[in-house]
Amino acid sequence: MLNIFKKHIEKFAQVSDAEFEEIKKYFDTKRATKKENLLEAGQICRHHYFVLTGLLRKFYINEKGNEQTTEFAIETWWLTDNFAYERQVPTEFYIQAIEQSTILYISQDNQEKLLRAFPIMERYFRFVYQRAYAAAQKRIKFLFSFSKEEFYFQAVKNHPEFVQRVPQYLIASYLGFTPEYLSEIRKRLIS
Amino acid sequence: MLNIFKKHIEKFAQVSDAEFEEIKKYFDTKRATKKENLLEAGQICRHHYFVLTGLLRKFYINEKGNEQTTEFAIETWWLTDNFAYERQVPTEFYIQAIEQSTILYISQDNQEKLLRAFPIMERYFRFVYQRAYAAAQKRIKFLFSFSKEEFYFQAVKNHPEFVQRVPQYLIASYLGFTPEYLSEIRKRLIS
Repeated sequence: MLNIFKKHIEKFAQVSDAEFEEIKKYFDTKRATKKENLLEAGQICRHHYFVLTGLLRKFYINEKGNEQTTEFAIETWWLTDNFAYERQVPTEFYIQAIEQSTILYISQDNQEKLLRAFPIMERYFRFVYQRAYAAAQKRIKFLFSFSKEEFYFQAVKNHPEFVQRVPQYLIASYLGFTPEYLSEIRKRLIS
Repeated sequence: MLNIFKKHIEKFAQVSDAEFEEIKKYFDTKRATKKENLLEAGQICRHHYFVLTGLLRKFYINEKGNEQTTEFAIETWWLTDNFAYERQVPTEFYIQAIEQSTILYISQDNQEKLLRAFPIMERYFRFVYQRAYAAAQKRIKFLFSFSKEEFYFQAVKNHPEFVQRVPQYLIASYLGFTPEYLSEIRKRLIS
């Protein structure tokens, strides 16, 4: 299972088998059941999560009391509340398993120790953050450019397997729709 | 002037004076006049820009033909279209100096050479991207949570010096308002 992580590192940085044996000691793994919360609002954000198998989402409770999903993470994606994680302060977010998932995770303290002991991992995380930042910049442009309806149509067109996999009420939570409104749009899309 | 960059590196990574003398050879500097475009839509995004003095903005032309500003960069901020920069493909964005500015910049090719020659710079850029990503995540939450009016009120409250410094029509371009609508809101704020 950890081979998934090793392969992901090797996309960006070269580590030997011996090095990887040491690197993996800084991490833990856990199985999360469907709907299990790995992180809850008000808790110190202690961990950075890497999805080995399964699917996570990040959300917060908005002023209307609804769950606003802001991100999803599939296999080989990292997820945390980066601001709260770096500063080790309480988060406003929840991180929840959508499916039964296997998660690799590391504490902020261990991540810093790992980076000091294996500077090659600076290169790995530099790429991880660089790509994540580029994706977030693209997302911000999307949020300015497209209505939520257009955003949904784009997602169906460009990532059909993802839209299939995520329950509809969570797609609605990501788009800021009511589930009823999403049903309406889907009917329009089919007709 | 380059001391501003050296101090910024030292926030995250330790480099000796001798190392910095080598590191700085990978960069160029230029003075940009007010309203000068460093990058234009359709061009290959060749450079990563670091503001030594002055102020930049990034924008694109939306489907209505209006300039939608998506980011500002003040002193010690990095700015580029990260997606197009990493892949060396044409951008949809413009990067423009709002004030007369002094800019340090590096090509994608040189940045990669620098990181290979000085792995300590992996640590520096890892922090740069990590912080930028955390800020983008916060911004996405803001875009979901606040109306554009609330966003403006928050900006006036939390970053008054920034709101003072940036011309009102560019604040309007960032918020997706017409300048006239921004005037209206400002009147409401004062009364």
